[in-house]
Amino acid sequence: MKRYFLSEDDIPRQWYNILADLPNKPRPMLNPQTHQPMTAEDLFPIFCEECAKQEVNTTDAWIDIPEPVRELYKYYRSTPLVRAYGLEKSLGTPAHIYFKNESVSPIGSHKLNSALAQAYYAKQQGIQSITTETGAGQWGAALSYAANVFGLDAAVYQVKISYNQKPYRRSIMQTFGAQVTPSPSMSTRAGKNIINKNPNCQGSLGTAISEAIELCRTTDNCRYTLGSVMNHVSLHQTIIGLEAEKQMEMAGEYPDVIIACFGGGSNFGGIAFPFMRHNFIGERKTRFVAAEPESCPKLTKGVFQYDFGDEAGYTPLLPMLTLGHEFMPANIHAGGLRYHGAGAIASQLMQDGLMEAVDIQQIETFDAAMLFARTEGIIPAPESAHAIAATIREAKECIETGEERVILFNLTGHGLIDMAAYEQYLSGSLHNYATTEEDIHKFTDTLEKLI
Amino acid sequence: MKRYFLSEDDIPRQWYNILADLPNKPRPMLNPQTHQPMTAEDLFPIFCEECAKQEVNTTDAWIDIPEPVRELYKYYRSTPLVRAYGLEKSLGTPAHIYFKNESVSPIGSHKLNSALAQAYYAKQQGIQSITTETGAGQWGAALSYAANVFGLDAAVYQVKISYNQKPYRRSIMQTFGAQVTPSPSMSTRAGKNIINKNPNCQGSLGTAISEAIELCRTTDNCRYTLGSVMNHVSLHQTIIGLEAEKQMEMAGEYPDVIIACFGGGSNFGGIAFPFMRHNFIGERKTRFVAAEPESCPKLTKGVFQYDFGDEAGYTPLLPMLTLGHEFMPANIHAGGLRYHGAGAIASQLMQDGLMEAVDIQQIETFDAAMLFARTEGIIPAPESAHAIAATIREAKECIETGEERVILFNLTGHGLIDMAAYEQYLSGSLHNYATTEEDIHKFTDTLEKLI
Repeated sequence: MKRYFLSEDDIPRQWYNILADLPNKPRPMLNPQTHQPMTAEDLFPIFCEECAKQEVNTTDAWIDIPEPVRELYKYYRSTPLVRAYGLEKSLGTPAHIYFKNESVSPIGSHKLNSALAQAYYAKQQGIQSITTETGAGQWGAALSYAANVFGLDAAVYQVKISYNQKPYRRSIMQTFGAQVTPSPSMSTRAGKNIINKNPNCQGSLGTAISEAIELCRTTDNCRYTLGSVMNHVSLHQTIIGLEAEKQMEMAGEYPDVIIACFGGGSNFGGIAFPFMRHNFIGERKTRFVAAEPESCPKLTKGVFQYDFGDEAGYTPLLPMLTLGHEFMPANIHAGGLRYHGAGAIASQLMQDGLMEAVDIQQIETFDAAMLFARTEGIIPAPESAHAIAATIREAKECIETGEERVILFNLTGHGLIDMAAYEQYLSGSLHNYATTEEDIHKFTDTLEKLI
Repeated sequence: MKRYFLSEDDIPRQWYNILADLPNKPRPMLNPQTHQPMTAEDLFPIFCEECAKQEVNTTDAWIDIPEPVRELYKYYRSTPLVRAYGLEKSLGTPAHIYFKNESVSPIGSHKLNSALAQAYYAKQQGIQSITTETGAGQWGAALSYAANVFGLDAAVYQVKISYNQKPYRRSIMQTFGAQVTPSPSMSTRAGKNIINKNPNCQGSLGTAISEAIELCRTTDNCRYTLGSVMNHVSLHQTIIGLEAEKQMEMAGEYPDVIIACFGGGSNFGGIAFPFMRHNFIGERKTRFVAAEPESCPKLTKGVFQYDFGDEAGYTPLLPMLTLGHEFMPANIHAGGLRYHGAGAIASQLMQDGLMEAVDIQQIETFDAAMLFARTEGIIPAPESAHAIAATIREAKECIETGEERVILFNLTGHGLIDMAAYEQYLSGSLHNYATTEEDIHKFTDTLEKLI
């Protein structure tokens, strides 16, 4: 282990907006009724104005980080870039493995990078309360913390399976003053409809998003925030890659391959997009690999279609690689990756062959997590363990070829709240879940009707 | 919040051994049979030789930190010194509040500072396995991690109440490869005796120490390690105070009062002892305040007597402020503070009026923890919350007097594994526990017979 830090002055002052530089822009979000492209103004009832503008900004490659947000970033940034000598040695690989350690934020994950920005913009606009969804709770915890910092009320719908699997994260959100409701709940029409159809439904991010949007729509002076999928969330997360770029320079190397786990795409975009711009101008040939669960394989097995971002169909139609908005992923512990679709930018990048994806079974991710914990001393979140597993696959390839490949992955968060999952692993009671073609066709075959 | 860090070069290269500078040395440890002072050699069957020598070293004020240990310190050190502007503002106090944030270590607490040293010395000596006790599990997690780093087997006896209250910490220890047994257990004679007397016994640190020592004695090439109480553990923890001294200089201030929670005394010694040396030579007049639970009040209500360090009487006789080694503390969440006695140095300092102590009820500590979490964004361990509560008392005094008192406290660890305690607090089901004179006399009246 060797760590690289930036001085406070070197912490980036702007986020990188890849939309300005993409060879092919994603297709626009559409109004589900009119099928017309959505403007920023169309999004104002749901998102803060500044976030809505960022969402559709395809011209400015650099967006200033508001100074109060950058001040709050300084509480935990720069996060360390770490050379994982221990992991390299135990694998016996000639690869050079680096990871960006986002687990050191106060709430334990990268999610705070966007939560602080979204809460700040809400406060600036005079908003009183914010709603959101969360899976494993990393985003909900970040949002609760950020809302508390800016004096906003926060209401979080947490996917029921995670609410029950990870009670400590619920308590963290409550400690920061948020109201937390397991989703699906009877508190919204969307939730009631799901429960009526399936009383034992354990929820999904898609359902929780529906409930959070519905609460936002029915509450005065309230806006909805979310932790991934949308362009502006990835934008805020680019602080990760921009720092990593400077830190890799300190280490005297440049990544051949960059790996991130993939739920909606914000941590992937966060670490990958800043490096992609060098590929776009032919300066570099870095590979970008998204690691997703085999039980929720939208990138490797999904269809490229307009789809809703939520289960109830409250969102605009988004151009997505998707498993269908009614797809209900298996109850894996990586709750943050249990989302049916990929954000518009990543979906376009996949179409254009500018990134790759792998899908990984749950037990392989925990094998990787255990090895990482014992060699690097940090217990990773189950989501991050997907990136570690993909990294180990790459590093093992290098054993065959003798290649000194430089691998950089994003350690999105620690797993201290996920120890129940580790306990299952240690006791041999953890399961794999695969997704069949049939599972996918069930919810994607009808998507063409949407548009 | 403002944070101060040291460069790698400025991380101390020596620990500070207060024994060399104490105005009155503590009385020696005694052999319980002969009542003769114990030498380092007498301790060799239990402790690593280097630790045993450090334990009785009253001449060298500075002890070199072995380079491999210092290299491992660099993975998380320097830990930040933080100016707690958020807490100050919410209290409306003129006091300047600083805290040393030891929660950023890989296992989440200061305990790693000594675990790495003890595991290193064991490895150097050719030891194969180490045993230890743990309460809340902070020490056990650190020791498991350190044993893993140095390729040692580790067996941890965890106090039963904590084993059940905090299952995630047990899983953390197991993730690092340690064998964890709830104490009292049937695996040792000491454990069996306790269980025979009281089948529902929820354990104490004293009992767990007995079991760990017994396992050490009955296992080849094994040594016992412990997380507090002994002089050499406090010695290793002085890295905290030595760093804080340099960081306070960066902040341009010097503490008027230093506060730490108190279980056996190692974090207290860690942050306080380096500063005390300036008091000894009349250079400074800092006050030193230990914060202990009202349910385990050895400093404020204990007797100064020779006593055993463990429940079964396996240890040498230690000169202690003690509640009696058979005292069974209430089941508070701050498991790391549930110990009947204070280390020899702190006990002597109390006798000599060179430090102070306050005792605090559980609910006040959680009130303080909640305020700290919401104003500084870090959820503190229940142990650390005692230091925060004492800090708030001091800061409130300053509101009365208008004094700009400079307060420094040690945030020993985060509370992410203790969220069940927060949940109890949030739901109003947390209790206070007081200790009566009668409780104390019950186990201290017989101590005179020991010597």
